[in-house]
Amino acid sequence: MKCALFPSRRRKKVRSKDNDALKKYLEARKRIVDEALKQYVPGDDAYPPSLCKAVRYSIFAGGKRLRPILCMAAAEAVGGDSDAVLPVACALEMIHTYSLIHDDLPAMDDDEYRRGRLTNHKVFGEGMAILAGDALLTEAFCLMASGGAVAGGDGKRLLTVIHEIAHSAGLFGMVGGQAVDLESEGKEVDSETLHYIHTHKTAALLQVSLRAGAILAGGGPQELTGLTQYGAKIGLAFQIADDILDVEGDVEVLGKETGCDGERKKATYPALIGLEPSRTRARELVDEALTDLSSFDECADPLRMIARFIVDRTS
Amino acid sequence: MKCALFPSRRRKKVRSKDNDALKKYLEARKRIVDEALKQYVPGDDAYPPSLCKAVRYSIFAGGKRLRPILCMAAAEAVGGDSDAVLPVACALEMIHTYSLIHDDLPAMDDDEYRRGRLTNHKVFGEGMAILAGDALLTEAFCLMASGGAVAGGDGKRLLTVIHEIAHSAGLFGMVGGQAVDLESEGKEVDSETLHYIHTHKTAALLQVSLRAGAILAGGGPQELTGLTQYGAKIGLAFQIADDILDVEGDVEVLGKETGCDGERKKATYPALIGLEPSRTRARELVDEALTDLSSFDECADPLRMIARFIVDRTS
Repeated sequence: MKCALFPSRRRKKVRSKDNDALKKYLEARKRIVDEALKQYVPGDDAYPPSLCKAVRYSIFAGGKRLRPILCMAAAEAVGGDSDAVLPVACALEMIHTYSLIHDDLPAMDDDEYRRGRLTNHKVFGEGMAILAGDALLTEAFCLMASGGAVAGGDGKRLLTVIHEIAHSAGLFGMVGGQAVDLESEGKEVDSETLHYIHTHKTAALLQVSLRAGAILAGGGPQELTGLTQYGAKIGLAFQIADDILDVEGDVEVLGKETGCDGERKKATYPALIGLEPSRTRARELVDEALTDLSSFDECADPLRMIARFIVDRTS
Repeated sequence: MKCALFPSRRRKKVRSKDNDALKKYLEARKRIVDEALKQYVPGDDAYPPSLCKAVRYSIFAGGKRLRPILCMAAAEAVGGDSDAVLPVACALEMIHTYSLIHDDLPAMDDDEYRRGRLTNHKVFGEGMAILAGDALLTEAFCLMASGGAVAGGDGKRLLTVIHEIAHSAGLFGMVGGQAVDLESEGKEVDSETLHYIHTHKTAALLQVSLRAGAILAGGGPQELTGLTQYGAKIGLAFQIADDILDVEGDVEVLGKETGCDGERKKATYPALIGLEPSRTRARELVDEALTDLSSFDECADPLRMIARFIVDRTS
């Protein structure tokens, strides 16, 4: 679909009170992504059943689908069609899910609960959880390279996107961030290291989700620059908000234990600069992100709303 | 380079006595792959250093580079240039190496030694070993999608190869085989399950290495069929030979403990059909693989020699 989400509001600036509109938008998009994932991820009856079950357990655990939604919204922000980027959008969710499964392992964050349910390894065992993560990561690239509607006549555009996503998810991106985070546990961490962890572990994949959608939809260099800067800001704001939620979030709403970061002496913004300054920094980042979108028309309104949602969310 | 490895022997059939020629060929190719990997894999001075160190520890652990060599040999067998497929060939080695790191983890095979050295998690810890595997898998796709020389004007051919490699390495390929293997430990395994494990855990990646090289080099459908069948046979023969080596191999030459499969009641050919029938089956498969190459000219001689090497090897 092409930027027809708020037909009655075109040319009107979307205000922060538009919580209902955002809620509806996010729910509608989540449904589209969930339906597509059902097509792309093997069913429980596929072989090997145990592995498929472990994969489905985590991919259908009620995630917000933020990365696919950002990918689709970026495609629309540059005047493209969000349906055409759906395979890549779903692949981004598969990569995100694999990273959660591996992060939760005893050798990493050792978490028992995620989204209100037992973590993957608690249900299927550590070996199967490692394999479920490996499978999701690999299948994400399988799905992207299958191309279909996305590739069209332009394989090079899809190759660029696969390359960028792999780079942002890999050694110099998400996995790199996780490695530094793992090493930093129980140590005093300076602001430079904390910034590295946050920008790589979380922001890199959020940012590339936007770039992927825009590149596939044929966005120009100026549009890409704007979305890249917006992505960096909301990515960092997202992680700061996550750190704040760990300190003061509601266990019921969050679906996982809080206070974990402090107990483990994990590097967080509240620990480094305090709770209130962290909150201020997150809001500043959202304002900056909105400025980065100033040259975009109303097709970027969902991205504007999402920026606000990222710091206002409760889970 | 294009099929100029045995210039003085063209049109002559290569015999099994050509061990020296094969040794020289494999060593020369291994050097080419090692040099290329040094370019593609981040140095010890890259950030984050601990992750880069863990990645380099396993990728430069003295592997035979069989998958990249098969990829390059297949490109030459269809009249192509092996240099052009080098990035994809190296990516296959990175995928293979990630699978070894994860397979060795305590939650999987729990191996302490590999290629005569401590396994990755024994040196860097479980968390970092999981991340090193994740990084290698992701960087493999990053490298492939970067395309470079391979892509040329034909991004679609490269997308096909990325898709096929991801499929063979993923849920319906290598990871699937590993999952069934993991579940089968300590259980009675029938021949059908054992066949599934072997064809998926080992043969799938060997087979797609050949297909990738041939597709990138522009091989025709008939050539692809021949190489695919050859790949299935040598892939299975390779795994049977591995099982046999575990029973009677030399610990010093092998660089890892033997007898592990039996101790763990792992599904193996010798355990299911006996040692001598396993040896016979491996040799039959090699003969069949050679028949699959009957329509190829002398440019496929390296593949003919490799088929024999696979069952004759001692490590």
